[in-house]
Amino acid sequence: MTKGIYLDNSTTTRPSNQSISKMMPFFTERWGHPSQPHQMGQTLYPALAESYKALYTLLGANEKDSFVFTSSGAEAINHVIQSAYMDISLSTGRNQFITSNIDEAPGIMAIGRLEHEGCVGKMVDADEHGKITPQSIADAITPRTALVSLDWANGLTGVIHPVGEIAHICEERGIPLHIDASHVLGKLFFELNDTGASFITFNGDHLHAPKGTGGLWIKEGVKCSPFILGGIEQGGLRAGSYNIPGLVALGNAATELLDSRDLMCTEVARLRNKLEEGIQKGFPRSVIFFKEEERLPHITAIGFPGISNEALLYALNRKGVYACIGGGSFQQIGLILAGSKVPGPLAHSAISFSLSRETTEEEIDKAIEITVEAANKLSKMSAALGAA
Amino acid sequence: MTKGIYLDNSTTTRPSNQSISKMMPFFTERWGHPSQPHQMGQTLYPALAESYKALYTLLGANEKDSFVFTSSGAEAINHVIQSAYMDISLSTGRNQFITSNIDEAPGIMAIGRLEHEGCVGKMVDADEHGKITPQSIADAITPRTALVSLDWANGLTGVIHPVGEIAHICEERGIPLHIDASHVLGKLFFELNDTGASFITFNGDHLHAPKGTGGLWIKEGVKCSPFILGGIEQGGLRAGSYNIPGLVALGNAATELLDSRDLMCTEVARLRNKLEEGIQKGFPRSVIFFKEEERLPHITAIGFPGISNEALLYALNRKGVYACIGGGSFQQIGLILAGSKVPGPLAHSAISFSLSRETTEEEIDKAIEITVEAANKLSKMSAALGAA
Repeated sequence: MTKGIYLDNSTTTRPSNQSISKMMPFFTERWGHPSQPHQMGQTLYPALAESYKALYTLLGANEKDSFVFTSSGAEAINHVIQSAYMDISLSTGRNQFITSNIDEAPGIMAIGRLEHEGCVGKMVDADEHGKITPQSIADAITPRTALVSLDWANGLTGVIHPVGEIAHICEERGIPLHIDASHVLGKLFFELNDTGASFITFNGDHLHAPKGTGGLWIKEGVKCSPFILGGIEQGGLRAGSYNIPGLVALGNAATELLDSRDLMCTEVARLRNKLEEGIQKGFPRSVIFFKEEERLPHITAIGFPGISNEALLYALNRKGVYACIGGGSFQQIGLILAGSKVPGPLAHSAISFSLSRETTEEEIDKAIEITVEAANKLSKMSAALGAA
Repeated sequence: MTKGIYLDNSTTTRPSNQSISKMMPFFTERWGHPSQPHQMGQTLYPALAESYKALYTLLGANEKDSFVFTSSGAEAINHVIQSAYMDISLSTGRNQFITSNIDEAPGIMAIGRLEHEGCVGKMVDADEHGKITPQSIADAITPRTALVSLDWANGLTGVIHPVGEIAHICEERGIPLHIDASHVLGKLFFELNDTGASFITFNGDHLHAPKGTGGLWIKEGVKCSPFILGGIEQGGLRAGSYNIPGLVALGNAATELLDSRDLMCTEVARLRNKLEEGIQKGFPRSVIFFKEEERLPHITAIGFPGISNEALLYALNRKGVYACIGGGSFQQIGLILAGSKVPGPLAHSAISFSLSRETTEEEIDKAIEITVEAANKLSKMSAALGAA
C-alpha cells in the first residue's frame, strides 16, 4: 500500500506512529466527554492540558491567546471568515474581504459565500515570482476592508509570502490579518509576533496528525465568534463532540514537528534540491518554478514543457511515484502558475513534489530516475504526435 | 478507568471495539486522501462506498438522497440551519425559524445567530408530558417560516416527539423539517418516509462510533448549501480533510446499531424498567418522569424530591455510578423539566440515566443499590438541615 514513493505531502501526510499510539487509549479506555461532571469526563483534563500546551509551544503562543481545536483547516478558515463577517461587517459595515488568486479554495469560497450577504470579495493577483506582494495588498485595501486572508505559503510551489510586511500594512490600517499556516508549520522558523497575524489556522493532516484535526489560533484580545454553535465546549468557541483522541494526536504531532524542524530545513531541503537537479540534468528543458524566491524547504513545482501534467502524473503513478497537480482544496497547479503570469502551456505542464521528514535519499534517487524516464518518453510521444 | 457503572450514554457512548479496529488501517496504511488522483487516494473508494452503504441502510435512505459526513452532530445541525438561511431566507425572505424550548443547544444557538441577520427564532414550549405537540408547531408556523428544527426525542427524558404528525403539518405548509436523530438511531424502528423530514442529523459518538463523527441526511431534491466551504469533496457539500478513519468507524457502527436494535428495544428496555422500579421501591418518593409517554427504551429521568440533583450526582460519581443532569450540548435537566411544566424544585432534583446495549443486569442491580442508598442518605441530611 505505502510501498510507493510518496511526494504528495502537501495534500496529506502519513500520521506519525507515535501520534496514533498516543491517541489509542482515548478510543478504548478514556472515551468520556470533558463536559461530564463525573469521573469519565474529569480524568481527561491532564491530557487536554498537555495537548494544548504542545500546540501553544508549536505556535509560540502566549497563554492569553485563544486556540480552537477544529476538525480541519478548512473548518478553521471558514470559522475565521464567517466570524469576521459577524463580528466586523455586521457591526461596522466594513464588508470587503481580501484574499489572493492563488489561495486555496476554503478561503476563496468562504469569502464567495459572503457575497450573498452584501459583502465584496477582492482577489489580489500574485506577481510573476509567485508571490503576494505587500504593495498589492496595500492597493487593494479600502476603508471598507474587514479582513485580509492569505495562505502563508503556497503548498504547490512552496513560495513563502512576506506576511510580516503585509501584516504591517494591515496593522497601520487597523485590519485584522488571517494567515493559513498549514504548509509552514514545522518547516519555517518564525516568531509569532513577527507574523502580525490576528488569526492563524492550520490543517492537522498536513502535520503528520490524523485526518479530522485542525486548529485556529486567535490573538489575545481579538474577537472571534464561534462557527459551530451549541454549547460551552472550548470556552464557547466551538461546540460539537470534542474529538479528544484527535486532539491528543495533534498535540503529539506538534511536539514532533518542532523536533523535526531542523531536519526539514537542512536534510529535506537538500533532498528537494537534489530532486530538482536530477530532473533538470535528465530532462534539461524542465523549469524549476520560483527557484530564486524564498521557498519552503520541502516543496518544488517543476514544469515539463511540451508535456501534459495529467499524463505525466498518470505515468508517475503507474511507476509508484505519487506527486500532485492540485485538486482537493488546492486550485489546479496550472491555474496557480497562470495566476503568477506563467504562460498557459508551461503552467499546465507542471507537477508539484512535496517531501516530508520521512523521505529518503534512496526514494529521491529512484524518483529522479522514474520522472526523467517518464518525461522523456512522453516528450517523444508528444513530438511524434505533433509531427504526425 | 471504565470500572464504573456507565449510565450516561446520552452524553457519549463507548466506541465499539470492532469500529475502532476497522478504522486502524486507515491511520497506519491507507492514510491517503480521496482527492489524490494517484494510488494513495484511489484505493480508498471501496471503503468509502461500503461505509456510505451502511449509513444509508441504517437510515433507510434511497440512493438519490444525499449524505454529508460531518465532524459532529452539532456541525450537522449548524449546517442545516445556516443552509436554510442561505437557501431559503435569502431568496424568499422567509425568515422565521422554529425550534422547541427543550431542544439541545446547537439548534437553539444556530437559530440565535441568525437573529443577527434579521431572522426571528420561535421556541415552542413542550407540554406537561415533555412532548412537542403538532398543535404547538401548527400554531407557531407563519407564512414567513423557513424551517422547523427539532430533536426527534429528548436525550435526558427519553420522550419521543410525534415527528410524523409534525412533518405532515410542515408538508401541508411547504416548510422543510429538520430532525436530529442522535438519540433515536438504533433504538427505534422507523420508516424514513414516515418521518417526513427533509433533513436528519446525528452525532456519531452517541452511536458507539468515535468522537469527531456525525452525519447529515438530505432528502432527494432538497437544496442544502455547504457549511464548510472549500472544495469538491463530498460532492461539494463539505470541504475539509476527509476523516476516512472516522467514516469507516461510523459505517461499522451503523451496521452494529441495526444488529443491536432488537436488544435495545427488549432487554435494555427491561433493564431500564428494572432500574426505575428498583429506585421507586427503595426511595418511594421518587418520580419517574413521563413514564406513560412514548419513550426511548434506554433512558429515564427520575426526580428525587427534596434532594439537589448536583449533590446526588456527586454522591453517585463517588460510588462509581455515572449519570447525567445535562450540560455539554444539553440544557440542564432542571430547565428541560421546568420547560415541561414540572415545578422547579422537583425539576432540579432530577437525574437522567441512559443505558446502552452494553449495560448488564449486574450493573443495574448495583446502580439501584447505590442510588437508593445515596438518595436516602442525602434525604436525611436535607431533612436535618431543614430542621436546623
